Amino acid sequence: MSTRQLHLNLFIFDTGHHEAAWRMPESDPHVNVNVKAYQHLAKLAEEAKFDSLFLADSPAMMGEPGRRPTARLDPTILLSAIAASTDKIGLIATASTTYNAPYELARRLSSLDHISAGRAGWNIVTTSIKEAARSFGLPFHPGHAERYDRADEFVQVVTQLWQSWQPDAVIADKAAGIHAIASKIKEVKHHGEHFSVEGPLNISRSPQLYPVLVQAGSSEGGKAFAAKWAEAVFTAQTTYEEAQAFYTELKTRAANNGRNPDHLIIMPGVVPVVADTLAEARELEAELNALIIPEYALNKLASVLQIPVDDLHLDRHIPDNLPPEALVEGARSRRTLVVELARRENLTVRQLIKRLGGGRGHWTLVGTPTQAADALQHYFEQGAADGFNIMPALLPSGLTTFVKQVVPILQERGLFRREYSGSTLREHYGLPLPAEHR
Amino acid sequence: MSTRQLHLNLFIFDTGHHEAAWRMPESDPHVNVNVKAYQHLAKLAEEAKFDSLFLADSPAMMGEPGRRPTARLDPTILLSAIAASTDKIGLIATASTTYNAPYELARRLSSLDHISAGRAGWNIVTTSIKEAARSFGLPFHPGHAERYDRADEFVQVVTQLWQSWQPDAVIADKAAGIHAIASKIKEVKHHGEHFSVEGPLNISRSPQLYPVLVQAGSSEGGKAFAAKWAEAVFTAQTTYEEAQAFYTELKTRAANNGRNPDHLIIMPGVVPVVADTLAEARELEAELNALIIPEYALNKLASVLQIPVDDLHLDRHIPDNLPPEALVEGARSRRTLVVELARRENLTVRQLIKRLGGGRGHWTLVGTPTQAADALQHYFEQGAADGFNIMPALLPSGLTTFVKQVVPILQERGLFRREYSGSTLREHYGLPLPAEHR
Repeated sequence: MSTRQLHLNLFIFDTGHHEAAWRMPESDPHVNVNVKAYQHLAKLAEEAKFDSLFLADSPAMMGEPGRRPTARLDPTILLSAIAASTDKIGLIATASTTYNAPYELARRLSSLDHISAGRAGWNIVTTSIKEAARSFGLPFHPGHAERYDRADEFVQVVTQLWQSWQPDAVIADKAAGIHAIASKIKEVKHHGEHFSVEGPLNISRSPQLYPVLVQAGSSEGGKAFAAKWAEAVFTAQTTYEEAQAFYTELKTRAANNGRNPDHLIIMPGVVPVVADTLAEARELEAELNALIIPEYALNKLASVLQIPVDDLHLDRHIPDNLPPEALVEGARSRRTLVVELARRENLTVRQLIKRLGGGRGHWTLVGTPTQAADALQHYFEQGAADGFNIMPALLPSGLTTFVKQVVPILQERGLFRREYSGSTLREHYGLPLPAEHR
Repeated sequence: MSTRQLHLNLFIFDTGHHEAAWRMPESDPHVNVNVKAYQHLAKLAEEAKFDSLFLADSPAMMGEPGRRPTARLDPTILLSAIAASTDKIGLIATASTTYNAPYELARRLSSLDHISAGRAGWNIVTTSIKEAARSFGLPFHPGHAERYDRADEFVQVVTQLWQSWQPDAVIADKAAGIHAIASKIKEVKHHGEHFSVEGPLNISRSPQLYPVLVQAGSSEGGKAFAAKWAEAVFTAQTTYEEAQAFYTELKTRAANNGRNPDHLIIMPGVVPVVADTLAEARELEAELNALIIPEYALNKLASVLQIPVDDLHLDRHIPDNLPPEALVEGARSRRTLVVELARRENLTVRQLIKRLGGGRGHWTLVGTPTQAADALQHYFEQGAADGFNIMPALLPSGLTTFVKQVVPILQERGLFRREYSGSTLREHYGLPLPAEHR
């Protein structure tokens, strides 16, 4: 048995990550607001000893509402209900540094860490969709660089707030009538470019001190931020070579920042489409792809590429004269990934839409359980991944198949745990408690 | 059996509402961050068929940290975990209109209503403590009038957002590939004095359409706000005459606003200190009062009165020359209540501290189970209350005693339900779904 084991995160996206998953016979198209469905998936993942589960989010409506389930429960609220019905699995909430107040969010995430007994993680996003500015009364959506600058200051502030209660502040001395030692609850006084926040936080320190800091952007700004702050990274990579290059670059940058690269775990997204035979897996993929509605997909692709939809034609290639990445303000790294995928594989727009339907640019892994396990093992052992962000194309069957057929193979090969050895998310991920006053 | 029945809300305040509850032998002084303790209390209240439970909150540290448990879990997060472990009881979260963004809070409360299957309530506060401004980078804490003006606009915005999804918007037509009818998800465009918010909300309508709107301030601004918006009111009244006058005034003002006064339920706070005999109940009260530390209590009283602590002397009366209510910016009605109580009963500061220790100015009801039931029945039948906000002095025993000894008497008299007849908080409170486009 190898000593190093891989990590598995379940990325729950209502009926599944495939664009058309909700149209499949098994789908309950109302699961997006059904807490019991989420609790059920969380329990399945916990029984399979997954490290964590993760919920994406956006502070405004995403995409056209007709296209697929778009309404979403707030992740921090939903994960608290999931915490109450699970015991071990880590719970990672997405929350934006552009559209939250540091004091309020620090307190909410700390509450989740208390309630889950140390299982909270925070996927730090800067929010790429410009509609969010309208929800929050901003005159315009801040640009890419400003968003990351603000994110950096945001994390500085919240990590200070999380440390404002010293470990030995609460003594609860009934006889003396002293509940906490006031001098051990430190004042925070932050007055920066983006935020003025004074503390202390109105909640005592949580089991993990603070939630595991997760990051998912792969633009230059995203990578610099990850190398500084992230303890876990979700990333979209469509080829092994890209995944390996990203892995090496990010570990090196973390080390250059004086960090232990083992304390930054990298988990590429993978969309498993698994069946008993390769032919059956391909059939399932084709069945899903056949349900994609081209007009919706065209609009979505135009939005990802940040060009007018009229510039796209189903049986032609994407335009040659797209602006360079540095001039793009939205979700920069996802857009570059899609452009490069289309050009590398010489895809028409119609072909590209099918290629993206499964996982929006993530690595789609079509095959038998053994083929899937082999591919994951290859990435893990050849320096391209510390674990994987599992994104079932179709739920719940995509998860059931993965945990029943792929996870046992990984366990047999000694690549994945058979039992939890710890109880907090930091313990599952092999991360230390954060250093004080970082 | 009378047809009109009273409503019971449990106000959970960590170890109990008495200032010194945490020092009693039974107290676990760490319950303030222990979700299991809250879940246990919620289940006790649900077994006794309480309508709801309620959590106070403040967006900054309240009071001196040493004095008693001060750290608090975020109520929306905590109530979601409680929702997962209960089925019927309503769940009321306090959240500030001064220190939240309407879009974000609307979505969070709607999420709680979805997750609890229609049991959410929102206690709307404007936040009286000025420290909150420091947490949120405001140059100063807004004054009383501005806070209520902002609260009014805040509620206008969030009620619009909650109505942005029409009831028949989601059709989930798999065959046609249409998940929702885009034209039935309405744009919100609010551009007011305090907020600019455009929608729609990024979550579909919740079971109650929106959480029950609760309000607890009794200042002139608070009463005007309640008469316009509130569907349930928690109020602090120390005498029957005051409670009756408040009840009549608020019902009249609601009617004058064109509202059905039955759709505004009024629940005075009551701190039951109940034991088998009156002597034992008084003994329990004395035991609690003996544990109050005068220095802490002096600081707290000075803060309520908004005067320097040096102006207070334990064996004298409160100063004569306090400024009138209209000039007070903080928690205005609570301050007036305390001043009037001290003057009416001619109390020294030491006596006032003991009088307030039990319930911070709420009605302390010391006696046998029958005496307690008699008093509640009197208020309920003589036009002073539609129900009660039960604030146990000491937890969990104060709740256990009340549900085991007082609730059965109320049930026997036909004053309180023996079984839930509905499943949402609106159904428990006898409130209709909110009218559209109010």
